[in-house]
Amino acid sequence: MSKFWSPLAASLIPYVPGEQPKDQTYVKLNTNENPYPPSPLVLNAIKDAANGDLRLYPDPTCSALAEKAAAYYGVQPNQVFIGNGSDEILAFAFAAFFSPSNRPILFPDITYSFYKVYAALYGIPYKTVPLDEEFRVPLDAFDEPNGGIVLPNPNAPTARYIETERFRGVLDWNSDSVMILDEAYIDFGGKSGVELVAEFPNLLVVHTLSKSRSLAGLRVGVAIGHPDLIEGLNRVKNSFNSYTIDRLALAGAAAAFDDRAYFEETTRKVIATRERTDAGLKQLGFRVIDSSANFLFAEHPDHPAAGIFQGLKQRGVLVRYFNQPRIDNFIRISIGTDAEMDTFLRTLEDVLRQDGGSAEA
Amino acid sequence: MSKFWSPLAASLIPYVPGEQPKDQTYVKLNTNENPYPPSPLVLNAIKDAANGDLRLYPDPTCSALAEKAAAYYGVQPNQVFIGNGSDEILAFAFAAFFSPSNRPILFPDITYSFYKVYAALYGIPYKTVPLDEEFRVPLDAFDEPNGGIVLPNPNAPTARYIETERFRGVLDWNSDSVMILDEAYIDFGGKSGVELVAEFPNLLVVHTLSKSRSLAGLRVGVAIGHPDLIEGLNRVKNSFNSYTIDRLALAGAAAAFDDRAYFEETTRKVIATRERTDAGLKQLGFRVIDSSANFLFAEHPDHPAAGIFQGLKQRGVLVRYFNQPRIDNFIRISIGTDAEMDTFLRTLEDVLRQDGGSAEA
Repeated sequence: MSKFWSPLAASLIPYVPGEQPKDQTYVKLNTNENPYPPSPLVLNAIKDAANGDLRLYPDPTCSALAEKAAAYYGVQPNQVFIGNGSDEILAFAFAAFFSPSNRPILFPDITYSFYKVYAALYGIPYKTVPLDEEFRVPLDAFDEPNGGIVLPNPNAPTARYIETERFRGVLDWNSDSVMILDEAYIDFGGKSGVELVAEFPNLLVVHTLSKSRSLAGLRVGVAIGHPDLIEGLNRVKNSFNSYTIDRLALAGAAAAFDDRAYFEETTRKVIATRERTDAGLKQLGFRVIDSSANFLFAEHPDHPAAGIFQGLKQRGVLVRYFNQPRIDNFIRISIGTDAEMDTFLRTLEDVLRQDGGSAEA
Repeated sequence: MSKFWSPLAASLIPYVPGEQPKDQTYVKLNTNENPYPPSPLVLNAIKDAANGDLRLYPDPTCSALAEKAAAYYGVQPNQVFIGNGSDEILAFAFAAFFSPSNRPILFPDITYSFYKVYAALYGIPYKTVPLDEEFRVPLDAFDEPNGGIVLPNPNAPTARYIETERFRGVLDWNSDSVMILDEAYIDFGGKSGVELVAEFPNLLVVHTLSKSRSLAGLRVGVAIGHPDLIEGLNRVKNSFNSYTIDRLALAGAAAAFDDRAYFEETTRKVIATRERTDAGLKQLGFRVIDSSANFLFAEHPDHPAAGIFQGLKQRGVLVRYFNQPRIDNFIRISIGTDAEMDTFLRTLEDVLRQDGGSAEA
């Protein structure tokens, strides 16, 4: 605490990202990164863009990339917003569409923990909607007067997917408030809600290149929605930072949309490895939530998750553990290569046998 | 206007960056870019970083780059904050140190126009301090109770520099409020206030790699201050976006600090060209404000600036014109290469002769 901090800064409880330890080399399955490198087209495009033009500002409207993304999603360029990662898009969207003076916004009680951080940042009231015992989202519960809705699909960290068609009811009922559909993990087996954008001017779909495009290190997210929503995002962005995406990220992201074959191949591989890992976990006695993402969420009836997490870490395998109500007996495991997941399963077996999973391990 | 915009989004008047026209090739002297390419070390570092590791998130603490910057500035790494351009740092700093419920913050009436945009974004009251007729900042006027101070040095768009030692009085008098010293242009002949950071825990110095490091396209800024101020910035940043700087920008920016010789050579060249251009403008009858930046601010007693701006643009030379009280007879000219400035001066001479400088030109 410092006397120089604003009351806002003093009140914040910032988001804590998954650890990036440097003390040793881990099998890193804790931040949902893609195990496969980005497309060679992306790397070449970046190398080409590493030239003298870096002395010049990037295009603040990201128009070339927005056109690529628009073509990919089957929308117009004025229905696309490019952000410095999907987190930045969410941060802008909360400011653009939700308000401290409006009704509470709604999101699930178990979900991406950044949502409540954004709400606190802007003083936006929120109410959480409890998931059921199987971590399913009770969509009917969103049919109450609200200042906005945030729904991730698939949800994180549960990995559960909702059939996209089922959002029609929520969007219809809430025609006066904006619904943000956070599809960070949609490419791993789900069907995007982008096609609903044409029908629902209150729908903003948010994607990221961090997961399915193997570009967590490049920081690019895409939002798709009605031109009015895109303009709202631009109003906030241009009151914050005119040039959020550097020239290298613009070039690399555009190339990522060009290489559809590579994208489809690597996501297919991640899905196949997920299914293998899911089976392996079940063989070890885990309950595994159905996943449509590039991670699995699992608990063991006899071994506390905290101990499993520590035991894995001591043996060089990093997964994610959330010490939070309702999910504090779960670990979240990002899907790596087949070889990494074999190591993970072998190590996990060892942890269960040796430690008995005690939290002191 | 859309019914989906928050009252905040509806109220904003976003910053308008200098135009980036694509209709023809211009001699581009309108956004204070450096005419020289980045150091070859920077381009090589970026090419090296364009590898499979882009699948991984960047270091959210930017620790390797912060260490490089700390060594350069002679401070500790916990006195350094890295932002996605200095604009993002300013946006975080306004939220971290200024408050809607505090006294108005103070900044000059003629200055970087983004300051009032940030104030509006966060609802922070502000009061502008009028510059004198020569566009000098009356430092005494900042000795009044305030919620914070923002001073650019050199100021933009005037290019005027204040001797750094003169800030001691302002910092002493205002020991309870944070002063942001925006030194985006300090490397073109000024002396940085970074050395005052050790004495004044209320001083945050903000730098950018966009100008003197020729990296406008990479989006990296650096703030230097007391560890408490850096922590305040991190609290806001981590409530907004954990990973603001991509792996390529981290690598390129670190390399920029490595190549001190190149940096010194190119800034020296820009300064020399500025002095030549200053002399050329005076020869054409312009009044030119003393500049310590990589741009010049000038007016002609007989030719309205609006007409000069248009005349130059029609002839393929872009400068910046601000249609604002007190400075609407000035043009701001970024310093290009010697050849570009020769073209500029020749074209300007033609404009003055042919158009008579009328606004209809």
